[in-house]
Amino acid sequence: MPNEAGAGLPRRLMASGHGGRARAATGSRDPGEMGADEPLQHEPPEDVPPGGGPLERQIRFVIEADRLKTIARQSRITDGTRRENSAEHSWHLALMALTLGGHAPAGTDLGRVMAMVVVHDLVEIDAGDLFVYADSAAHARQEVAERAAADRIFALLPEPQAVAARALWDEFEERRTPEARFARALDRLQPMLLNMHTDGGTWVAHDVPIDQVLSKVELIEEGSAALGGYAREMIAQAVERGFLRAVVDPRAG
Amino acid sequence: MPNEAGAGLPRRLMASGHGGRARAATGSRDPGEMGADEPLQHEPPEDVPPGGGPLERQIRFVIEADRLKTIARQSRITDGTRRENSAEHSWHLALMALTLGGHAPAGTDLGRVMAMVVVHDLVEIDAGDLFVYADSAAHARQEVAERAAADRIFALLPEPQAVAARALWDEFEERRTPEARFARALDRLQPMLLNMHTDGGTWVAHDVPIDQVLSKVELIEEGSAALGGYAREMIAQAVERGFLRAVVDPRAG
Repeated sequence: MPNEAGAGLPRRLMASGHGGRARAATGSRDPGEMGADEPLQHEPPEDVPPGGGPLERQIRFVIEADRLKTIARQSRITDGTRRENSAEHSWHLALMALTLGGHAPAGTDLGRVMAMVVVHDLVEIDAGDLFVYADSAAHARQEVAERAAADRIFALLPEPQAVAARALWDEFEERRTPEARFARALDRLQPMLLNMHTDGGTWVAHDVPIDQVLSKVELIEEGSAALGGYAREMIAQAVERGFLRAVVDPRAG
Repeated sequence: MPNEAGAGLPRRLMASGHGGRARAATGSRDPGEMGADEPLQHEPPEDVPPGGGPLERQIRFVIEADRLKTIARQSRITDGTRRENSAEHSWHLALMALTLGGHAPAGTDLGRVMAMVVVHDLVEIDAGDLFVYADSAAHARQEVAERAAADRIFALLPEPQAVAARALWDEFEERRTPEARFARALDRLQPMLLNMHTDGGTWVAHDVPIDQVLSKVELIEEGSAALGGYAREMIAQAVERGFLRAVVDPRAG
């Protein structure tokens, strides 16, 4: 029985925390709403009955998470029939972490990558999904909304799991570790793959300038040289197929 | 940087195999279709161009997997608006593995549990989803169809990843390891949670006899005593709320 790898994963990933990086409440929260003077993880959310044990709180979190299935992204699934939702997108990233993990830098903790991609979009339950090519003002508003959402949603978990889950999300957002950079690379590559299989998808629908696409390719390269190279070739193909206009030299193909 | 756990996860989980348990081709496949005399993992599937490198084959697998988003299950998502699909269901199980992993037996490899739940339903791309309370003849037909699907789908991957991925799926199906029993427990618990939040869901829609539900509770108990106990209490509540008829004593509550 292969028991050595990831034994006690939740103790490391969702219970013991990750260097104590969990943020305290941000200014975006209403101080009166949930008591902003204390770190959020010390306060039960309003809708958990007092006395709920750890398992009851974990189940409450699992049920709340179900709402991610209702959050629509811009990308269409490969059969073109409908937009993808953020829950199935997160599953696709977890499968990509398993499948493409060999292209991560040596020593990358792929269990942590999987955990990160599984939780990374939960904040969209409150904040919604923002199109990756939205303008910078929209991105700034989204960041505030997502931080408030993280404050609320991860605090549904019992301690110290709440802190650890929040730390996983912060790690993904901050993109400072190889695990976070690889997870983010997958998050950027996946919608490109969908676009290539839906006649250009969001690139065509939103007439996305190629330099914006190439800036996402750079993020992929930072997480994985091999996947970055693959993405760059794919963009060259997308230009050839008319999905993107080569107003900027794609530096590939 | 927490790098010790799961480092090289795909090498263990999706590349090096798991005790060489991958099955050879089963009799359910058309021998003429893909050449059944050789183990499937030695043959590239028909629609992968010759000369496709490992990364190209991995991407092909990731794209094929997208179709899992179109496979409808019987359960409804908690807002009641539509049926759940198998991709978002698989994500929900991965989140449950992270959240509820502390209730697995000591020493359970939760990275392996996550990997298993991420791949466990891929066979439904060809075989479709079968309602858990279907009759035994339907289950027997489904098993044959799923094995043929596993033969085809995991063989899209390059070796030795194809063998390792197939071994993960076989491990889940055979339910002999603590990891497989815990993964299966989550797979049984999750639709019960959805039923409790959709006015009885599939229990009411299909008038499921309570003894059949209790047999699923036993499977949950085999994976986790704590989750089994939780499920048993939940079934007692379901009877109180009229979602299930107590024709058999639920032995709980």
